[in-house]
Amino acid sequence: MLFCGYSFVFPIPSIPVNYSVLPIIVQKYGGTSVANPERIKQVARRLLETQQQGYSVVAVVSAMSGVTDSLIQLAKEVSQKPVGREIDVLLATGEQTTMALMAMAIEDLGGKATSLTGAQAGIVTNAFHTKAKIHHILPDQISAELAEGKIVIVAGFQGETSDGEITTLGRGGSDLTAIALAAALQAQECHILTDVEGVFTCDPRVVPTAQKIKVISYDEMLEMASSGSKVMQSRSVEFAKKFNVIFEVRSSFNNQPGTIVKEESPDMEQVVVRGISIERNQAKVTITNVPDRPGCAARIFTAVAEAQLVIDVIVQDVSAHGATNISFTLNRDELEKMGNLMDQVAQEIVAGPVHKEGGIAKLSVVGIGMRTHSGVAARLFEALAQGGINIQMISTSEIKIAVIIEESAVEKAAQLAHVAFGL
Amino acid sequence: MLFCGYSFVFPIPSIPVNYSVLPIIVQKYGGTSVANPERIKQVARRLLETQQQGYSVVAVVSAMSGVTDSLIQLAKEVSQKPVGREIDVLLATGEQTTMALMAMAIEDLGGKATSLTGAQAGIVTNAFHTKAKIHHILPDQISAELAEGKIVIVAGFQGETSDGEITTLGRGGSDLTAIALAAALQAQECHILTDVEGVFTCDPRVVPTAQKIKVISYDEMLEMASSGSKVMQSRSVEFAKKFNVIFEVRSSFNNQPGTIVKEESPDMEQVVVRGISIERNQAKVTITNVPDRPGCAARIFTAVAEAQLVIDVIVQDVSAHGATNISFTLNRDELEKMGNLMDQVAQEIVAGPVHKEGGIAKLSVVGIGMRTHSGVAARLFEALAQGGINIQMISTSEIKIAVIIEESAVEKAAQLAHVAFGL
Repeated sequence: MLFCGYSFVFPIPSIPVNYSVLPIIVQKYGGTSVANPERIKQVARRLLETQQQGYSVVAVVSAMSGVTDSLIQLAKEVSQKPVGREIDVLLATGEQTTMALMAMAIEDLGGKATSLTGAQAGIVTNAFHTKAKIHHILPDQISAELAEGKIVIVAGFQGETSDGEITTLGRGGSDLTAIALAAALQAQECHILTDVEGVFTCDPRVVPTAQKIKVISYDEMLEMASSGSKVMQSRSVEFAKKFNVIFEVRSSFNNQPGTIVKEESPDMEQVVVRGISIERNQAKVTITNVPDRPGCAARIFTAVAEAQLVIDVIVQDVSAHGATNISFTLNRDELEKMGNLMDQVAQEIVAGPVHKEGGIAKLSVVGIGMRTHSGVAARLFEALAQGGINIQMISTSEIKIAVIIEESAVEKAAQLAHVAFGL
Repeated sequence: MLFCGYSFVFPIPSIPVNYSVLPIIVQKYGGTSVANPERIKQVARRLLETQQQGYSVVAVVSAMSGVTDSLIQLAKEVSQKPVGREIDVLLATGEQTTMALMAMAIEDLGGKATSLTGAQAGIVTNAFHTKAKIHHILPDQISAELAEGKIVIVAGFQGETSDGEITTLGRGGSDLTAIALAAALQAQECHILTDVEGVFTCDPRVVPTAQKIKVISYDEMLEMASSGSKVMQSRSVEFAKKFNVIFEVRSSFNNQPGTIVKEESPDMEQVVVRGISIERNQAKVTITNVPDRPGCAARIFTAVAEAQLVIDVIVQDVSAHGATNISFTLNRDELEKMGNLMDQVAQEIVAGPVHKEGGIAKLSVVGIGMRTHSGVAARLFEALAQGGINIQMISTSEIKIAVIIEESAVEKAAQLAHVAFGL
């Protein structure tokens, strides 16, 4: 639906521009891109240039970097457990501040702009405060302002319930605002402008020869995101996939093309592995001698869920002598809490000792080509074996193979895999 | 209508409280009263105590002190002349931050609270950005929240046009919000809580024996406000007078009674002078030898109005030899700009030299008793003469006598007048 190839003729300057027929571009600028007045002015110039290229421009802005954290700090100082409704009211001021400054900066450069809160932009959400879901968008006011030739600045991350309550969308919410607006406005392009140049075949700090990926499928982007490439939160990519919004991740500091994220096409399967992502700071917990009877494994994972802890790779050994070992990985920061919890659970279900281990990492190779190309796992294992790197756990999906290894070996592993898959 | 003496019985704790029949109190807390998390928590406790005394409580809050200035500074950094619409969007975040923190603090103490922006509180204004006027108030949501036993926190200083645009009410806007809400909600009481204890017979830093005034009429309060006692902006007092809202100015740092401001009653005329206010940092401009023909004086004051300068006391000498001297006072900070302007005008209308003089002050004695008691001016002039203080200019209204004197003499003058009128 987007990138629909609609034929656009640049208006001749002497004829009044009919703004309502211009293709719409939605651009999202994150916190570092609007971190201070100087950067806000740079973005304002960029938005004007984009408009002059013949677009109706909608800019979604985040809070200036640091502002949201300061507000959360204030909340903690007045309340031990701030209520969600009021957190949303509080945090919404961050994006509102940026949007007003951005509109002022554009007007100061001689452009026309107007800023809109989530509510004013017609972003209607459910009432699940701090993690609201967008229910629908009524973009009438945006369209009306665009038709007057204005650049419309929308506060990211926020919306309003149908009762007029302020809500926020949770982590990565501004990306979601941009993608949802692109869908609602049937935008021709959607840019997520950030402090990186796009999605890379691997983290360039780890693999200096890493390349920027030109095009990536939604599913590959999701696997990359969920395995450590924190360019975007998964939910925004899922939303884009659901509504088929093609978007491009690019740098707000230059005009280089970035990475286009779209539905997969047959030619994309030619590449077996699109990229490699690594996630450090992982930990592993093993509950030994878990009795092999119904309910024991369930008890473990219910306790994890109740404590709102997040686990990643799970491996259960083949049962022997009526008992088995269950291992899983998690973020290192939660190891102590998880360890204590599992000690209790192990006692309860009469299992053996619980082993806790930090200092591990996850390396994932991702590519939709895996569906049609065999031997990917073998090639990965061979590369790691050549480097003398021991694989502790393995997890696979249709388009991903992830291995758990020593954290100290992760850079070498990434370099070997990068070479092995010809990236 | 307010203070209507409606009989209120404190509910017996074991019976569910019918919140919708409780008398309503509106309390406004200024920037210094909510300057930091600690003070916000203090105000939260105070609001809960007020509720426990059997009131439905509406609190109007300002931005934390310093926040509005920081936002204006940011605006100046992105724009040489920020547009009014966006200034309003920007500044409105200040009060929104405070209101969320206040609601959190109340909930943290075990109370029930909800915060509302100007828009959510139903404060509908005209579209005159940065100085909007309240058109009407639709307090349905406030009433609904109060009926649920919640303390309602309303962002001061802001409203919304009927088109959903954010507006602000200009200087002293939070006082106006409080007084307008008190009128709309038919509140039984309205408190303006600030960093002073009330209105005093004179500035206690100047006259140590100054007394807190228990009751003052709207007109006296207006004269005090317009002559230097900056407890409140005139427009809020005017609004209160128009809608007959009785309010009390009191300290947010203790529970002492403050000063009640209300319509005058016959007994209030017993006091000849209610208070003395002084305004320092004044200046005087005299245009000499203004030709005594039609249009010359008009030209002077048109130029002043066009330059958006504010002048106070005006004196024109008796004409002699076809010419006259015109003098007026103004704020010292604007003397240079005004002096340059008057130099031009004097040349234009072929007047004599323009004298500019700083270092003067205004002392005003205010009281509705002057209407019925004669000799007030004589008593003031006599007191000043005894102190050897020279009067440069005199200005009077029905309930005020103001004199322009040397700034260095103003403390002595205030002390002498304070004694002369038995304050």
